Amino acid sequence: MAAINENFLKLKAGYLFPEISRRIRAHKAKNPDAKIISLGIGDVTQPLPPAVISAMKKAVDDQANGNTLRGYGPEQGYDFLIDAIIENDYRARGVDIEPKEVFISDGSKCDTGNIQEIFGGDNVIAITDPSYPVYVDSNVMAGRTGPANEIGQYEKIVYMPCTDDNNFIPDLPDRAVDIIYLCFPNNPTGAVATAEQLKDWVEFARVHKSIIFFDAAYESFITDTSIPHSIFEVEGAKEVAIEFRSFSKTAGFTGVRCAFTIVPGQLKAFTKDGRMVMVNPLWNRRHSTKFNGASYISQRGAAAIYTPEGKKQTKKIIDLYLSNAKLICDSLSKLGYKVYGGRNAPYIWLKTPDGVGSWDFFDRLLTKANVVSTPGSGFGPSGEGYLRLSAFAKQDDVEEAMQRFRKV
Amino acid sequence: MAAINENFLKLKAGYLFPEISRRIRAHKAKNPDAKIISLGIGDVTQPLPPAVISAMKKAVDDQANGNTLRGYGPEQGYDFLIDAIIENDYRARGVDIEPKEVFISDGSKCDTGNIQEIFGGDNVIAITDPSYPVYVDSNVMAGRTGPANEIGQYEKIVYMPCTDDNNFIPDLPDRAVDIIYLCFPNNPTGAVATAEQLKDWVEFARVHKSIIFFDAAYESFITDTSIPHSIFEVEGAKEVAIEFRSFSKTAGFTGVRCAFTIVPGQLKAFTKDGRMVMVNPLWNRRHSTKFNGASYISQRGAAAIYTPEGKKQTKKIIDLYLSNAKLICDSLSKLGYKVYGGRNAPYIWLKTPDGVGSWDFFDRLLTKANVVSTPGSGFGPSGEGYLRLSAFAKQDDVEEAMQRFRKV
Repeated sequence: MAAINENFLKLKAGYLFPEISRRIRAHKAKNPDAKIISLGIGDVTQPLPPAVISAMKKAVDDQANGNTLRGYGPEQGYDFLIDAIIENDYRARGVDIEPKEVFISDGSKCDTGNIQEIFGGDNVIAITDPSYPVYVDSNVMAGRTGPANEIGQYEKIVYMPCTDDNNFIPDLPDRAVDIIYLCFPNNPTGAVATAEQLKDWVEFARVHKSIIFFDAAYESFITDTSIPHSIFEVEGAKEVAIEFRSFSKTAGFTGVRCAFTIVPGQLKAFTKDGRMVMVNPLWNRRHSTKFNGASYISQRGAAAIYTPEGKKQTKKIIDLYLSNAKLICDSLSKLGYKVYGGRNAPYIWLKTPDGVGSWDFFDRLLTKANVVSTPGSGFGPSGEGYLRLSAFAKQDDVEEAMQRFRKV
Repeated sequence: MAAINENFLKLKAGYLFPEISRRIRAHKAKNPDAKIISLGIGDVTQPLPPAVISAMKKAVDDQANGNTLRGYGPEQGYDFLIDAIIENDYRARGVDIEPKEVFISDGSKCDTGNIQEIFGGDNVIAITDPSYPVYVDSNVMAGRTGPANEIGQYEKIVYMPCTDDNNFIPDLPDRAVDIIYLCFPNNPTGAVATAEQLKDWVEFARVHKSIIFFDAAYESFITDTSIPHSIFEVEGAKEVAIEFRSFSKTAGFTGVRCAFTIVPGQLKAFTKDGRMVMVNPLWNRRHSTKFNGASYISQRGAAAIYTPEGKKQTKKIIDLYLSNAKLICDSLSKLGYKVYGGRNAPYIWLKTPDGVGSWDFFDRLLTKANVVSTPGSGFGPSGEGYLRLSAFAKQDDVEEAMQRFRKV
């Protein structure tokens, strides 16, 4: 008799985005002429950089000829991309990364979920509240939690509240935890961590022999020169951290699919009886057993981001999103709203006025201004009373949306 | 203290392909002028069909324009591909498949590994011997086995020997098992299952409430009109089977990455206390939580396989590989070898003469004929005394390799 993984039965319904869609549909049904502007989605709107497009076309051509055809590539990714990553994302910032520490994949969502498989089921997981829901759900599926309580938080997970009290940087846990998810620049709050703050986390992880899963999918939005782009800019981090990077938001790869994960050679974990095991070969085994490499075409496209033209074109796109973010922050501040993030991140975390609930303010924006946002409470209970606004939109739409905010 | 998943420590070293590479290198070092021909690898050699190439180029162009840009797609895949699959792979064979039963992915290697996550750790797994090593290794990682014995077989797995005694079609297990891996046309033996044989398996699964993981990655090589391409051609199979399909070997997508899995709506599994749970929503939850859709470009390429030109071009490529397979079978039979498969599959399963061991005969072929094969023992103990020869090669190379066989 085939038995299911009963941990799946603990999962709460994926409520946030379906519910947003339902409310938009209902609003449209009542107001068929409403011109709705979405600042609700974390998906890119700008086309891919021309350098990426032409590299992908050339890669397609390679597949049309027996002499240049690329079949199965290395599961870990092609050297042409790995070398470009090492040189531009790390060596340029004084961080030494070896080729065998880089694992190219088809997305950070997959990587942050799959990485858990090499760790035991009894690890205590610490996750920020609010957070990207995949961190939580994938751990529920893997059985690292008990059931959910009435506010949707799962037993055994150590939640780390991020509020305006701590400037959306979580406090260090007051107990030992084994695996810590951190995401900076943060989705959804747009907060960034300073080198000092990351140093505290690395020190905490070293003391407790824990491992930090550092999600840096939004690092290309960092503008402050003092903010680290990689946790490996902090000394000793290679002994306690895994870093996730993505081309999705950097260069519009959400539909093209390419990302990478750095698993340092010196990173250690332990057996139950305390023997030390190196983590990199474990992940290499998992990655090469259950994954067959990212698309050759996507990898060629990703490598083009690191060419001189690719860098220039990519920066232009990022700058455009950042100018949207600035416009949102400035406009809403002028209107008297409290806004966070949006300076080194594509997300703006808006405090609702007068303690109005996230969903109530979502409804007010939708019905009075035809603007779609994302209720903060969808990312965790500490997101209640906030909305996430996304800078991934067309400039005209952002301007128009800011006009409409005055009416709310 | 971060603890590893100790099941990984049970894994035996991935010995087969690294050892083949090592022996080739050693041979080349001694014989720098040797012109080596590889019939050892299961990777395509023919370029992609022109219809696929032009569809992918158009898809790249779509990404260059804000109005046609495709960001995140549905995790389950685009309708344009799902509809083409339903129409051509299933409805054309009298099988009804609903859109929500189709899950597009980036590869069957991932799917056959990942699908396990929705099933409990205590399921008893039945796997053919020989088999594609990923079935075994991914179950070891998930903790569904004990340690390996001296011949590399893991405790708790029910191995089903496939030998010339049973014509490489496994006998039904003599006990209840929960999950059964079947692969037809088979990698590595090239065997195919008749409708009658599949009916027996479906009946067995119905009686024992087990689930069949049916890997049909090589279905496009079937030439006998009586052989089912899908297990769902057997009545009742939708209640007991999941089917895996891939574009890798059908149309040269090993480097492009696109595949799909059919999880029927009526497929059931159970909780420990016997409650029935529908499997499709579980997989939908897993797939949408830990995967972000296959590349838009790859999906557009895959859809082009189903156009009239795409079908014609794809058939031409398959026919070429099949003519290679026929040449290998015919030539080796004439030389007095016993060969299996190769008629409805790209693989030929060669019995070594005089009971010579797989690795010994591999060495003999390499050193005397400069021909690379794959030792059958690498796929499981029942593969001892066999070699796998692959038809994924250039026609000239196959002809030359057959000439050289005479010298061995």
